Amino acid sequence: MPVFQSLITTRTAFSTSNSLHQICSTMAVSGSFISPKSYITPCLTPPRPNHTCRKKFILRASGSNSDNEEGKMIIRKERDSWKIDFSGEKPPTPLLDTINYPVHMKNLTTHDLEQLAAELRADIVYSVSKTGGHLSASLGVVELAVALHHVFSTPEDKIIWDVGHQAYPHKILTGRRSRMHTIRKTSGLAGFPKRDESVHDAFGAGHSSTSISAGLGMAVARDLLGKNNYVISVIGDGAITAGQAFEAMNNAGYLDANLIVVLNDNKQVSLPTATLDGPATPVGALSRALSELQASPNFRKLREAAKNITKQIGGQTHEVAAKVDEYARGMISASGSTLFEELGLYYIGPVDGHNIEDLTTIFEKVKAMPAPGPVLIHIVTEKGKGYPPAEAAADKMHGVVKFDPKTGQQFKTKSPTLSYTQYFAEALIKEAEVDNKIVAIHAAMGGGTGLNYFQKKFPNRCFDVGIAEQHAVTFAAGLATEGLKPFCTIYSSFLQRGYDQVVHDVDLQKLPVRFAMDRAGLVGADGPTHCGAFDIAYMACLPNMVVMAPSDEAELMHMVATAAAIDDRPSCFRFPRGNGIGAVLPPNNKGTPIEIGKGRILIEGNRVAILGYGVMVQQCMEAAGMLKSQNIHVTVADARFCKPLDADLIKKLAKEHEILITVEEGSIGGFGSHVAHFLSLNGILDGPLKLRSMVLPDRYIDHGAPQDQMEEAGLTSRHICATVLSLLGKPKEALKFK
Amino acid sequence: MPVFQSLITTRTAFSTSNSLHQICSTMAVSGSFISPKSYITPCLTPPRPNHTCRKKFILRASGSNSDNEEGKMIIRKERDSWKIDFSGEKPPTPLLDTINYPVHMKNLTTHDLEQLAAELRADIVYSVSKTGGHLSASLGVVELAVALHHVFSTPEDKIIWDVGHQAYPHKILTGRRSRMHTIRKTSGLAGFPKRDESVHDAFGAGHSSTSISAGLGMAVARDLLGKNNYVISVIGDGAITAGQAFEAMNNAGYLDANLIVVLNDNKQVSLPTATLDGPATPVGALSRALSELQASPNFRKLREAAKNITKQIGGQTHEVAAKVDEYARGMISASGSTLFEELGLYYIGPVDGHNIEDLTTIFEKVKAMPAPGPVLIHIVTEKGKGYPPAEAAADKMHGVVKFDPKTGQQFKTKSPTLSYTQYFAEALIKEAEVDNKIVAIHAAMGGGTGLNYFQKKFPNRCFDVGIAEQHAVTFAAGLATEGLKPFCTIYSSFLQRGYDQVVHDVDLQKLPVRFAMDRAGLVGADGPTHCGAFDIAYMACLPNMVVMAPSDEAELMHMVATAAAIDDRPSCFRFPRGNGIGAVLPPNNKGTPIEIGKGRILIEGNRVAILGYGVMVQQCMEAAGMLKSQNIHVTVADARFCKPLDADLIKKLAKEHEILITVEEGSIGGFGSHVAHFLSLNGILDGPLKLRSMVLPDRYIDHGAPQDQMEEAGLTSRHICATVLSLLGKPKEALKFK
Repeated sequence: MPVFQSLITTRTAFSTSNSLHQICSTMAVSGSFISPKSYITPCLTPPRPNHTCRKKFILRASGSNSDNEEGKMIIRKERDSWKIDFSGEKPPTPLLDTINYPVHMKNLTTHDLEQLAAELRADIVYSVSKTGGHLSASLGVVELAVALHHVFSTPEDKIIWDVGHQAYPHKILTGRRSRMHTIRKTSGLAGFPKRDESVHDAFGAGHSSTSISAGLGMAVARDLLGKNNYVISVIGDGAITAGQAFEAMNNAGYLDANLIVVLNDNKQVSLPTATLDGPATPVGALSRALSELQASPNFRKLREAAKNITKQIGGQTHEVAAKVDEYARGMISASGSTLFEELGLYYIGPVDGHNIEDLTTIFEKVKAMPAPGPVLIHIVTEKGKGYPPAEAAADKMHGVVKFDPKTGQQFKTKSPTLSYTQYFAEALIKEAEVDNKIVAIHAAMGGGTGLNYFQKKFPNRCFDVGIAEQHAVTFAAGLATEGLKPFCTIYSSFLQRGYDQVVHDVDLQKLPVRFAMDRAGLVGADGPTHCGAFDIAYMACLPNMVVMAPSDEAELMHMVATAAAIDDRPSCFRFPRGNGIGAVLPPNNKGTPIEIGKGRILIEGNRVAILGYGVMVQQCMEAAGMLKSQNIHVTVADARFCKPLDADLIKKLAKEHEILITVEEGSIGGFGSHVAHFLSLNGILDGPLKLRSMVLPDRYIDHGAPQDQMEEAGLTSRHICATVLSLLGKPKEALKFK
Repeated sequence: MPVFQSLITTRTAFSTSNSLHQICSTMAVSGSFISPKSYITPCLTPPRPNHTCRKKFILRASGSNSDNEEGKMIIRKERDSWKIDFSGEKPPTPLLDTINYPVHMKNLTTHDLEQLAAELRADIVYSVSKTGGHLSASLGVVELAVALHHVFSTPEDKIIWDVGHQAYPHKILTGRRSRMHTIRKTSGLAGFPKRDESVHDAFGAGHSSTSISAGLGMAVARDLLGKNNYVISVIGDGAITAGQAFEAMNNAGYLDANLIVVLNDNKQVSLPTATLDGPATPVGALSRALSELQASPNFRKLREAAKNITKQIGGQTHEVAAKVDEYARGMISASGSTLFEELGLYYIGPVDGHNIEDLTTIFEKVKAMPAPGPVLIHIVTEKGKGYPPAEAAADKMHGVVKFDPKTGQQFKTKSPTLSYTQYFAEALIKEAEVDNKIVAIHAAMGGGTGLNYFQKKFPNRCFDVGIAEQHAVTFAAGLATEGLKPFCTIYSSFLQRGYDQVVHDVDLQKLPVRFAMDRAGLVGADGPTHCGAFDIAYMACLPNMVVMAPSDEAELMHMVATAAAIDDRPSCFRFPRGNGIGAVLPPNNKGTPIEIGKGRILIEGNRVAILGYGVMVQQCMEAAGMLKSQNIHVTVADARFCKPLDADLIKKLAKEHEILITVEEGSIGGFGSHVAHFLSLNGILDGPLKLRSMVLPDRYIDHGAPQDQMEEAGLTSRHICATVLSLLGKPKEALKFK
C-alpha cells in the first residue's frame, strides 16, 4: 500500500450528514477564476501529501492493487489550482473510486468536487491513452460534468450532450467507468452518448446541433406529463451556429419552456478541423459576437449595472444570488437584448467553465427559479484543459489514437499510402491549378475533408461556411449559377443534413455542383451515426445527378477530374475513410476524365461476374484471387457509375454469365437496386417470373408537367394495361392502351 | 376605341431622354406612407380621367381590341392612393403595356412607377382570376418588384425571390406577361421562378429560406470573377426563421460580401397555413423581435439618435441621404446591435414596402454605397395588398383557384369526398381522443397538413414550430423519449429538409416518431419542387423505419391507428394531394391497427399479378377492370408496407403468376427496388441469370460495431466467395469461407 494513498482525503459517498460540510466549509478554498488566457501549467514535480481538515480514509485506486506507487502520478491542490502529474501510470483516484453514480456526488463540498474533477481529468487522460478516442473535448468539460451531476439528478433530470464526443466524464460518472477501456470497440462503449447504453444518456448524438431541439421536446413532454424534472442541453459554440440550433432557440423562446441551455464556448469547432497552421476557430459572425461578449469593456460596465437591474431573478441578495446577478443579463442594453435574448432566452454569462464553485452556484440558482423559461448559460472553457500536450497541440488532440500520456505523443501506425482524403485534396488542387473556376466549400471540416491543403494553396477559393451543411449546398449552387465550378465536400452522413438543398437547389436546377462525399460506407470507431450508408440511395434516386464511386485512389483522382469536367449537371462521388491501396497514381497526380456512365472489366472469367461499386471492387478482386485457387475463374468489373448505369457492361455481364453479384458498401435502394431495376425492365431476369417495376421516371420528376400528370408519368391504369398486354405477348392490344 | 383609354397618359418605353423626367419631377406626388395598420380601402366608384402634365398616348390594353369599356375597371390616383375598380373585365393598363422588359422601366418617374404598380396589381388580379395560382403574396410585392426592376438591372443584377410564389409581378415585368394565362399549366409558365424559363430568374425556388445562401454564392462568385453587379435576395419574415437563412446570414456577415437582403415582413407565413380562425402569423421568438422593431417607442427615439451617428453611410446629408439615415441602424443600442447586426448585417428599416418612392430611394442609396457588406433592408408589406377580398380573407387568398375578381369568390369544384389531408386529420383526432399521449407537430403548415383541426381540438398537444423541419423532427424525437406519441406531419418534399434528423435522431435511436408525409407523389400545379418523389427511397433505406402507404382514405385511417400503435420504433406513411376515392370509412372514423408487414390481395386472378403501393393501387384496380373486358383476369394486391415487405404475399404472388408488376408513385430505389432485391436474394428471379445484390444489412447499419466491420457486415472477399460458391452449388466449399 503506497504511503501516499493513505494520506489522500476523501469522504463516504452516501453520507447524508452535512456536518462534514459544515466543518469544512469555512476552510474550503474558493474556486479560482482561471481566465481563458491565464492557464497555469500543471507541475511535474513529485507528490506532496495533501492535508486538509477532513476525515481521512485509506483507499486504493479501484481495480488495481499495487501498481500505483508514490511518485508515479499525483493529483493535488496547490494554492488555487490542481496539479496533475501525467507520468503514464494509472493515477490514484481515491475520490473518483467512490463515485459509481451521480447520487454519490450529492454531498461533496466544492473542494471535493474540485478534487473529483482533477481525478477525473487524470483518469480520462490515462484511459484514452490506452484506447484512443475523443480526448480534448472531454477534458474541457470535466468541471461542467462534475457540476451538472452534482446539482442535477440524472436520469430523472435530462442532460443532453450535443455532438457527444465530450461525454467521457459523463460516462465515467454514470456507471461506465469500468468499461471505458472498451470505448469505440466492438461490443464496447460507444464513443458518443447512446440511449441503449445507459438511462443517463438522455439522447444519442454524433452529429452536431441537435441538443436544444431534443431538450425542448423533453421539456415540453415533461410539462404535458405533469413532471417536474430539469432538462439541460449542452451545446458548443461551433454547434450553435448551425441552423437547427437557431430554429430550436427560436422555438424555445416562443414556447417559453423551462429549459437550460449551457453554451460551452471554447472558441473551437469541436471537430477534427484544425487548419494547417493551428486550431480552427468557429467561423461566422455569431462567433465574433461571442468574442465581443467576452472582450467588450462595455460588457464589464454593463454587467455592473446589470447587478442592480436583475434583482427579479434572485430572492434575497445574499452572496449566492449576487454571484448569479453578476453573470446575469450581462448584455443589458438600450434595446434590451443580445442575440440570445432577442430569441427569447434568458442569458447568463460568460461564466468560467473551469470554476466549479461558480458553475454549481449558478446551476443551483437557476434550478431554484420557479419558471425561468429558457435560460442560456454561456460558459467559457478550454479544449484539452489541464493536459499540457493537448493544450499545446494544433488540433488540441481532438481525436487521438493511443498515446504516451507523459508526452502526448500518439502511436500512429505508419502506412505506405495516404488517406483517400489526402488523395482527393491533392487531385483537386491539381485541377484547380489549371482551372481557376474551381472553388471548394466545406462545413467546418477543413481538416477532415483535406480542404485545409486546398485552402493553403487557394485561400480565396476555399469557403468554410461553418457547421451549416444546408447553407453550404445552396451557397455552392449560387456559385455554380455564375459559372464557377464548386466542389462541395461533405461527409456522406453529414450531407444528409443538406439533402433538401441537394434535391431542390442543385439537382432540380441541374446546376453543376460537385459533391465529394468523404467517409462513405463504414467508418470504424465513430459507429452508426457517422456511417455513410445511405448516400447511394439518396443520390441515385435524383433525376439529374451523376453518381459515381472510385475503386481506388487513382480512380478517385480520375473522378475528381471527371467531376470538374461535368459542367452541365450535378455530380457526386463517394470515397471511404482510410488509406489507399497503393494504386499507381496518374502522372503529376492529375486525373483524366472518365467517360460518363462507363465501367470497366478488370478480370475476364466465366460463369460468374462480380460487379463492384466503389472500393468494394477491392474485395471483389480479392475474392477472385481466392476463388482462382479453387479453380473458379470469375469476371470482376468496376461499375464506376451508379447513375447513369453502364447499360452495355451490365447487359454483357448478364449475357455472358450465369451469376451476377453486385457488391456495394451502402444500404438497400442503391447500386444493386438500380442494377436489378435495369435488368428486370430489360427482361434480362425473365425466367419463370417476369418482374417489372413501374416508378416515376426521372424525366418526369425533373420536368413534371402540372396537368395530366399520371398520363405524362406513365402511371395510369392504361399504362399498366399496356405493360401487362406486352408481357403477355399481345403487342397490338397493348398499343391500344398506350 | 373607348374614350377613356385615349386619356390615359403614358410614355415611350425606350426614351433615353431625361427631359420628360425633369419636366414632371417637380409635380411628382411624393409616395404616401401607408402604415401597415391604416390601409385605405380601394374605391369602387366609376372612373375619372387621369390628367397629368405628361405626353399623351393613345393606347390599347394589350391583346384585346374592344372588350374594355369605360367604367369596367379603372386605375387612377386619388390624393395619396391609387384606386382600382375590380369589375371583372380586363383592365386597361396603358403604361404596363409598354413594359416588356425591365429596361423599359428605367426612366419612369415615381408617379409613373406608382401607376405601373397599380396597373400591375390590376393585371395580376385579372390574370389570376382566370388561371388560379398564388395571388396575395404577389400582390404584396408589386411595389417592391417595380422598385427593384427600376433601380437594378436584371439579368446582370440578380434578384432571388425566396419561396418564389410572389414572383408574378417579376414574371410580368420580365417578358412573360403574354404567357401568364399558362401559369402552372402543362408547358406553361411555372408557378415559381425557374432558371430554364428566363434569364431574369436568377434562382429557382419552391421551398423556402434558400435565397440568402444562393445570393451569397452569387455575390462571392461575382467578386471572384471581377464583376460588379448587384445581388438582391428577397426573403419573407416566415422564411427567415428557418435555420438555413440563419446559417446564410451568419456566413454573409463573416464573409462581409456585398449582398442586399430585402426582408419582406408581412406578418404572415406565406404558406397555405391560415388557422381556422384567421391568418397565421409566423411563430418563434424572432417574429416577436421583428414586431418590437416596429412597435418600440425606444426604436423611434433611437432612430432619431441614429441619424446623427450613421453619417458614415451617406456622403452629403442631402434629402436623399437623410431618408436612408432615417431608416438606417434603427436599433442603435449600447451593445450596438439588433439580431441582424449581431450577425454582421447592416440593418435598414423598417421601410414602408408599398411606398415606391421610399423603396427606390433606399435601393438607389444602397446601390451607391461602395462596399457596404451585407445589408438587410427590412420592409413592411401587406399580403393581398390593394385587393379588398384578399385583404379580408383569413388566408389572404394565398393560393386560389379561378375566382370572380369582383368579389373574390372562388369557383371551387364540389367533391363528394374530402381531401386525404382531412381524412388524416380526422383519424388523428380520433386516436388522440382515446390516447392523451398523442401529440402533433408541423412546420408552419397548420392549414396544409390539416393539423389546424387537431390544434383546435387539442391546443396544448399541437406544435407549430415554424418553418423549421430540422427542429421539428428532433423536437418530435425529444417528445418521444419521454413517452409521448408524436405525429410529425410534413409534406414529403419538405421532409427532405429534416432528413439527417430522421436518420440520426429518430431512426438510429429507434424512437417511435410517426411521420405523416402528405403530398406524396405527384402534386399538380406546384410542379417538381413540391413533387414527393423520393420519400419511399429515402425512408425505406433506413434500418428501423416502418414504411407504409394507404391505398385509399379508409386505409389511411387504419394506418394512422397503426402508427399510433407502433411504439417501439419509428414509422411513416405517405398519402397524396387530392381527394379520397369514396372508400367506406371505419366506424366513427377511427381506424384499426393493421398487422405490420402484411399486405392484402384485392382481386384473385391468374398469370399476372399487379402489386400496388399506396394510392397507385387504385390505378391497378382500374387496370384490372379494363383487362377483364379483354378476358384477362389479373390478381391485384395492395402492398401496404414497403418495409417490412410482406414476404409471404410477395412469394405467393411470384409463385402463382408468370408476371409480377409493381406500381408506385415514387422514384427508383423505392418499393419496386425492395421487391426486386427480395426476389433476387431469395432466388425467385433465378433463370438464365441469377442476380444477387450484396449491400450493408440493416442490422449492421443500426448496430454497427466499430471493429471487424466488413466482417460483421458480411462484405468481405470471403463473404463474396461464399456467395459465389453457394450459387455454383458448392455449399460445402462455401461454408469454408463463411
